[in-house]
Amino acid sequence: MKKICNDPQRYVDEMLDGLCAAHPHRYQRLGDSGRVLARARQAEAKVAIVTGGGSGHLPLFHGYVGAGLVDACAIGNVFAGPRVADCLTAMQVSHHNAGVLQLYGNYGGDRMNFEMAAEMAELEGMEVTQVRMTDDVASAPQQEAHKRRGVAGLVYAYKMAGAKAAAGASLREVTATAQKTVSAVRSIGVALSPCIVPESGTPAFTLDNNEIAFGMGIHGEPGIWRGEMRSADTLVHEMLDRLLEEIPAGRGERLSVMVNSLGATPLEELYIIYRSVAQRMADRQVSLVQPLIGRYATSMEMSGFSLSLCALDSELEDLLSAPASSPFWSQP
Amino acid sequence: MKKICNDPQRYVDEMLDGLCAAHPHRYQRLGDSGRVLARARQAEAKVAIVTGGGSGHLPLFHGYVGAGLVDACAIGNVFAGPRVADCLTAMQVSHHNAGVLQLYGNYGGDRMNFEMAAEMAELEGMEVTQVRMTDDVASAPQQEAHKRRGVAGLVYAYKMAGAKAAAGASLREVTATAQKTVSAVRSIGVALSPCIVPESGTPAFTLDNNEIAFGMGIHGEPGIWRGEMRSADTLVHEMLDRLLEEIPAGRGERLSVMVNSLGATPLEELYIIYRSVAQRMADRQVSLVQPLIGRYATSMEMSGFSLSLCALDSELEDLLSAPASSPFWSQP
Repeated sequence: MKKICNDPQRYVDEMLDGLCAAHPHRYQRLGDSGRVLARARQAEAKVAIVTGGGSGHLPLFHGYVGAGLVDACAIGNVFAGPRVADCLTAMQVSHHNAGVLQLYGNYGGDRMNFEMAAEMAELEGMEVTQVRMTDDVASAPQQEAHKRRGVAGLVYAYKMAGAKAAAGASLREVTATAQKTVSAVRSIGVALSPCIVPESGTPAFTLDNNEIAFGMGIHGEPGIWRGEMRSADTLVHEMLDRLLEEIPAGRGERLSVMVNSLGATPLEELYIIYRSVAQRMADRQVSLVQPLIGRYATSMEMSGFSLSLCALDSELEDLLSAPASSPFWSQP
Repeated sequence: MKKICNDPQRYVDEMLDGLCAAHPHRYQRLGDSGRVLARARQAEAKVAIVTGGGSGHLPLFHGYVGAGLVDACAIGNVFAGPRVADCLTAMQVSHHNAGVLQLYGNYGGDRMNFEMAAEMAELEGMEVTQVRMTDDVASAPQQEAHKRRGVAGLVYAYKMAGAKAAAGASLREVTATAQKTVSAVRSIGVALSPCIVPESGTPAFTLDNNEIAFGMGIHGEPGIWRGEMRSADTLVHEMLDRLLEEIPAGRGERLSVMVNSLGATPLEELYIIYRSVAQRMADRQVSLVQPLIGRYATSMEMSGFSLSLCALDSELEDLLSAPASSPFWSQP
């Protein structure tokens, strides 16, 4: 595996240079570090939504800065959390006196830094709430959901909360919508090959020729089991078994499913996976609506995929179909 | 490298099942083989545009079936051309008495089958034209451009001809626009790792740990040289040198650039590449507009990328920004 870059130490900054060069009407880089990405136009007086996280997961996190999504993002090095100062800057540049929701994945470092930034922002008079995504069922048991990591399901929370904020809802309402989305979403992933963090130049973990890691996290965190590669249907069935334990969707219920490539896994195979999900859901008489199939939360060139289920009520279904616009999410 | 599938012999059909299950309001599968993908609604009386090619390149080819793009696609096995009968069916289902443009990549098998289908369609009274994309500068010298392969630049031709047809132009006009796009687009690729054709289960070629194949085609066709991996800037400069020989863009001219991942190469690295392209073009005082950065024409999980330049006049620039809608191209 080879990385296309110039200086591994400048991987993130050159990526951000390219992103802003390509989309100057959408993005601006801010902060003394240049590690805050915000919407180019921050005109609307609405609740601000800020996020942040490590690099290496595009479109997550900063690709979702856009209309009807999030307003600003604090960006760390590859697989490393953002700095406190950048979290605070993201809040300051997007705040319009209607309050700020911090919406991010549940990782210790990110949490510590966002909490510190929240305290500083409150001293400046900002009203701040926090919602952390905890969708990865492989990362801790359900009764310890607060220990679970956030993975691709965070994208659903961006979309729902972003649409709610765009509609003029209050900070309390936007926060409640984000929290409702956290309750409605569960994810699980499987890794088939590692990725390389550019600064280290070596794979984050290794897998044998025919070995896969079931339940692995998007930074290579250990999963539930390691074992032999199996068929798409067999994999999908085991993943759905675990998700349906917590989202027991039945006849007449409506779900959105996300089939997310961790990076290298091609679209062809995502659709083979979706076919399997759709058959299983048809057997249960569950309606699948607005499927998301593609690359939403990656680990650079890691091979593998994650499945997320999002249980929809009428509010969430409306928010999911509301307009949104970023270079990675265009929905008229 | 592991393939996520059930039966390698059913890779393409299960992929198509999944695609139609996910997007039932957009696509329908037709033909006795089920290997024709057409728009679910074929209502408009306009020039029809049909395409086709082997599988394994999503979103190319059939992902571009949609409004403002192409109307139907004949689909082969992985890296194998479509059947004559499917090319003909694609024409029959999308034809509305305004004629049919066959628009596809310049490969011998595809050409033979589309030409045979054209003859059969003409016997049925259809007016048929053909345009073949020949954008890969690495595949033959400029004076033998008719021998060049079509790669990612085909997407520009879909977009331009699709917008022209949607605007109500005649078959002659739509064909001229497609031909103009062929003249305006040049591409070159570099491969960093192979992909696996599911039916064979083995890599299509091999590369050493630090070796790359400059100018390689999207099926692993030999390129210009094999050598050591180098920096993003160095790679991009050599690629641009070759493209600018034929598209000598200078001060005040307007180009669209496509930075296309062949599969595994992550978005982060595409933006590092774009940064390098943008700097070089700024030096020449060329304006870059409507860049396309992502996965447009892949080789499953192959690692590497291609660069395409499309020289824009005012007509092509308008057509590029016209509305289009498929699951892989949403432009309001």
